[in-house]
This record gives sequence, structure tokens and C-alpha cells, in this order.
Amino acid sequence: MRNAVNRDYYPLVILVLLAVLVAVIGSWVVERSGSQKVELREGALGAQQQYRWKMVTTWPKNLPGLGRAPETFAKKLKEMSNGRIDIRVYGAGEIVPAMGVFDAVSEGIAEIGHGAAYYWKGKVPAAVFFTTVPFGLNAQEMNGWLNYGGGMELWQEVYAPFDLLPLAGGNTGVQMAGWFNKEINSLQDMQGLKMRIPGIGGEVLNQAGGTAVTIPGGELYTSLQTGVIDATEWVAPYNDLALGLHEVAQYYYYPGWHEPGSTLEVIVNKQAYESLPQDLQAMVRASATFANQDMLDEYTARNNAALKDMIDNHGVQLRRLPDDVLRKLKQSSEIVLDEYAKSDPMTAKVYQSFKAFKESVTQYHHISEQAYINARDL
Amino acid sequence: MRNAVNRDYYPLVILVLLAVLVAVIGSWVVERSGSQKVELREGALGAQQQYRWKMVTTWPKNLPGLGRAPETFAKKLKEMSNGRIDIRVYGAGEIVPAMGVFDAVSEGIAEIGHGAAYYWKGKVPAAVFFTTVPFGLNAQEMNGWLNYGGGMELWQEVYAPFDLLPLAGGNTGVQMAGWFNKEINSLQDMQGLKMRIPGIGGEVLNQAGGTAVTIPGGELYTSLQTGVIDATEWVAPYNDLALGLHEVAQYYYYPGWHEPGSTLEVIVNKQAYESLPQDLQAMVRASATFANQDMLDEYTARNNAALKDMIDNHGVQLRRLPDDVLRKLKQSSEIVLDEYAKSDPMTAKVYQSFKAFKESVTQYHHISEQAYINARDL
Repeated sequence: MRNAVNRDYYPLVILVLLAVLVAVIGSWVVERSGSQKVELREGALGAQQQYRWKMVTTWPKNLPGLGRAPETFAKKLKEMSNGRIDIRVYGAGEIVPAMGVFDAVSEGIAEIGHGAAYYWKGKVPAAVFFTTVPFGLNAQEMNGWLNYGGGMELWQEVYAPFDLLPLAGGNTGVQMAGWFNKEINSLQDMQGLKMRIPGIGGEVLNQAGGTAVTIPGGELYTSLQTGVIDATEWVAPYNDLALGLHEVAQYYYYPGWHEPGSTLEVIVNKQAYESLPQDLQAMVRASATFANQDMLDEYTARNNAALKDMIDNHGVQLRRLPDDVLRKLKQSSEIVLDEYAKSDPMTAKVYQSFKAFKESVTQYHHISEQAYINARDL
Repeated sequence: MRNAVNRDYYPLVILVLLAVLVAVIGSWVVERSGSQKVELREGALGAQQQYRWKMVTTWPKNLPGLGRAPETFAKKLKEMSNGRIDIRVYGAGEIVPAMGVFDAVSEGIAEIGHGAAYYWKGKVPAAVFFTTVPFGLNAQEMNGWLNYGGGMELWQEVYAPFDLLPLAGGNTGVQMAGWFNKEINSLQDMQGLKMRIPGIGGEVLNQAGGTAVTIPGGELYTSLQTGVIDATEWVAPYNDLALGLHEVAQYYYYPGWHEPGSTLEVIVNKQAYESLPQDLQAMVRASATFANQDMLDEYTARNNAALKDMIDNHGVQLRRLPDDVLRKLKQSSEIVLDEYAKSDPMTAKVYQSFKAFKESVTQYHHISEQAYINARDL
């Protein structure tokens, strides 16, 4: 009886075993796909999630100096993140025109951009102080103001309404006053001088009696050659040599009063930045700092060889702007900036911070950096 | 018959099904532990492997300025690596004494260290050029030489026999000439001046007629107070205020001719560095660059407030070293350095590179940084 009954249950046992088998295999399959998910989830916090970003820039692709900074930034970031964040750098005009970089990153067309804050003065007047202003801070002083003088907090405040996070990402150091085909021996020679000089520098030139002209970089050579302009500013020997301006201008003037330490910017779309895990955010910031120092180092080391080349092999004549011209330009700068600061309350606030820092650091540099560099000449 | 035969096979079917079930569950278990292994293996290349390093330093733990740089470095590195590399910073004397840092990292007692290369001149004469020398490069120029003038390659060559990788990891900017209880109105007043000033600066002082004395930082206060010394150098207002030297010295002299832009160093044990995956190696280098700029920014922004506090609230009298004294110190520096460069062929090679870069960058700064900072005073 027992045996008979048992045998009667065999089909049921087989069915149960089949059901268990199906259940086990089923849960195995689910488990496998589930463990995939777990790995991916860990990836988002750690090693696996990949970000491919577009970086739009205001520079021709790979332009020496200026155009190298975004490449340096992207390379350092890729290296540190082991490829988790891979940034493709686009030159001006490749996705958006140079002057479209701010809007493109603000609107998320590109996740990140590289340029200079003073290009956006039409939209954000306060922005000029985060690049450079005439008779403003040099590179060391700019970094001091931005990182320990409240400048960076203000910059973030100014860009916040545009969903942009700004970072310092390059510095040219003191630029040259520019290329001239007219000798400047006194303030009188500045009257009516037709010079290509954009932005606040141009307004200062006008205030001092000159005529500021706006011409794109690509037309400078011809404009100087044909006498459409008497003079133009550009950057510094290492950059200027590449542009060939020494072929069409006689005199190379110093010191560059209008751009004493131009800070370039990395701008990051806020949503894109916040989508990154914290470690990648830290790498983005540190890569900008790296590019910021790297560019100044390169200019500092390479400008003199380019200048010597110009003088020794291209007959460039180096000239210093006379004291009365520099004095007038300095006075004009104060007038123009005081007026400019009235653009809006934010600009006034930034100007106040900038001015206070400049006064303090200038005072200290009288007895430190400046006193030393002058003592070296004794 | 069919039915009877089938029923006879039921136990066999059940056994087979049980076997299959065991096999499936078994392989499921193996699969699960296998996927664990895969995750761990990926971890070793990427997110999971953890490095806990000891960083020995030549500074008292958390000393303002100098002692903050290693903390800044470690914090930035931890943040970027998401804790994969976790560095504990030890102050001087905690694991090894300040002057034992080079050997400790060289021998792998600690994986990494922070200090200043000129401390090791007894062992490696060429090292002094990687910190600062009298009438040498300022901070911007040092960074230019190290990163684009061949300086860093030489530094690596000099440290390679000790299994050390050097990185620039902080800069004080131009230091002050120091605290004096004797007024210096002419070269005559330098004769017999008992001043605490270590290293090459001390040799230069001796050459110029003074008497260099070596006294540890902790004894400076009492030595000035009791007249054991007439003068001492330290760093700059932001650091000096903390040490309280203004309480025991009357005059604060500038400019600091002996340390015009001291670079601090991060040193990494070669085996420890090579044990890191490439992304962490890149983070170590970038964190040093970050600390290098961060420290200069902090000094640049904070020195003036400290100086004002000294003058306004502590009666400190600021004085400039007379021209003839500076001129003599400059001449003496050249004599001492030319002699010092004969220490060994490597020192001669480094000196040659340093000197050539200084000549070139000084030339360029005459028309850029220096010309601008002076034009600002017109």
C-alpha cells in the first residue's frame, strides 16, 4: 500500500521538481542581470560611468598659448580620471562661433567651454574684472584675489544666473602694449592714433585722445600693412611671432598697461557639473588650476626667446611708452572704470572688491615682489 | 505496459531532475562568487584598491602657510581619488625629525614627504637651486624654469639616485629681509652684524662682512630678546606675525634678497610612486601643482593685512635696506654661488641652467612684469 501510494505520487514529485528547477534557473537569470545592474550602480559612484563632453572655445584650434590651455585642461582631466571623463575640444566656429561660447555652455549645447570672461561684457558687465582691466592686477595678484581675496565667490555669483560655474584656466602674464607704425614720443603723438584695441582698453584709449578700432584678429596683418590702422595690441612675443605682425609694423611697444595679467576661464554648465560624482568634480577644478599655472609658466619661459628672435632676425625695434603717456592712460583708466562700475549694482560690488584688493596688494608688493625685482638691477 | 514501464522509470527521472537541480544551484553559486572576483579584479585597476600613505614633513604640524601646504596636498588628493589614496600628514618630529625627511622617504620609511630642497644641501649640493638662492628667481620665474626651462628634469636627475621623485608643492613668494635690532644705514652697519640666516644666504652675509649664526626657529624669540643675535630672517608678515618676533625686534627690513621665491617640495618614494596606477600618479602630480599655486595665493592675499597689523598695532618700523648694502649682497651672492657651483659636476650643470634662465627671464621681465608694476606707480 505504502509503495503503491508512493508510486502514485511520483508524477507530482516530478512536477514539483520541474517547477523548482524552472524557478532556480529563472532566478539565476534574474540574478545575473541584477548583478550587472549592481556593477553599473557601483560604476556611477566609482570607476565605470563614462562622460563624453564637448568643450567649445573662443580660440582657433591649437593656437599657441591661448589655444593650448583647453587641450592641457582636457588632457590632464582624462589622465586623472582614467578616461572616465573624456573631453573633446572644439576650436572657435567648429560647433559655435567664438562669441557664442558663453551661451552654448549656459544652454547646455556644450557641457564646458574655454575663453575669457571679458568677451561677455555686453551681457555681464561685471565679467571684465575676472579677466583683466587696464592698470589692474598682474597674474600673481589675480590668483591671490580670486582664490583668497573673495574674487572667485563673486565670479560664481555673477555667473550663477546663467547656470555656469567659472574657473580660472590660464593666464598670459603682462601683455605687450602692441605693434605701432607711428612713434610715440609724447602724449601729443597719441592724439588721433588709430589703434585696434577692444573692450575697456579701447575706451581708455579714446579717453586719452586716440581712436579705438575693432578689427578681427585675422585682418590685423592687412590693416597694418595698408595703413588702415596705426597700431594694434595682441598678446606677447611668443604669440605675436606666430601671427607675423613684425613683418608689417616697425615698433613693438611696452609695457602692456591694458592687460596686465589676463585670466582665461573654464566655464562648466551647472547641470553637467552637478551630474558628476564628487571626485570628478574635484578633478575638473584641479585640471583648471593646472592649466592656469601651466600657461603662465609657458609664456614666462618662452617669451624672451621669441622677443630676441624678433629683434635679432626681424629688425623689430623695441620701444617703451613715455611716462606722460602711461600717466595719462592710468588716469583715463580710473575715469573709465569708475564710470563703468555704474553699469549695475553687481558690477559696482565686484569693482569695489577688486579695487580694495589692488590697493592692499600693491602696497605689499612695493616692499616685496616689486622691491626685490628692482633691487636685482642695482 | 507503457504506463507500467513509465511508472518504473519515475524514480530515475526524479533522480535525474534532482541531479540537474543540484548542478544548476551549484553553478549558480560558482557564478556568483565568480562575478565577485571579476568585480574585484576590475577594482584593482580602478576604483577599489586603497593606498594609505604616511607623509613626513619638515614643518610643525599645521604651521600657518608652510605647514598648511602638505595638508592642502593631501586633502586635494583624497578628494580627487575618492579616498583611494589617503595620506596622513605628520609634523616634524612625529615619525622622523625635520631634517630626517629626505632619508625617510628615500628609504621608504614614509612613502611621501614635504619640505624644502635646500635643507638637503649637505647631501646634495645641487638641491639649493630647486628652492631658492640669493638674488635668484621669484615665484613666477621659478615655475617657468621648473616647468618649461628644464629645471624639473634636472631636479629629477639630481634626486633619482635617492629613489625620489620631486615635485614643486608650495611657494612663499619674495620673503622679507628680516627682523633687526640694529639700524642698517650703510654697508658699514653690516660689519659684524650677528644674524641668524642659514644656508647660502648665511655664506653671502659672511662674505659681505656679517656673521651668520645658526639657531633653531624655536629659539629665535629669546635670542633676539637677550641680544644673542642682532637680527634674524624668517618668512613674511603672514608667517612672522604668528611667531611674535615683532615683540622683540624694532625694525622689519625689506626686500628679502636671500629668498626671492622659495619653492617647497613634495618628494615621493620611487617604488611607492610606481606602485600606483597611472591615474593616481597623475593625481599626485596635479595635487602638488594645486598646493604650489594655493600657497602663493594665500601669502599674496594675506601678507599685507598682517603687515598693517604689525605697523598699526605693534609699532613695527618698516625699513628698506640701503642700495649700497643690496649692491654688496648681490656681488657677494655671485661670488658665493660661483664658488658653490664647483661642489660637483651636477651642481655646476644645474647652476648653468638656472643662470641662463635667470638672465633670459630677467631681460624679458624688464619690459613686461617689472616695467608694468613700476608703471603702475607713475
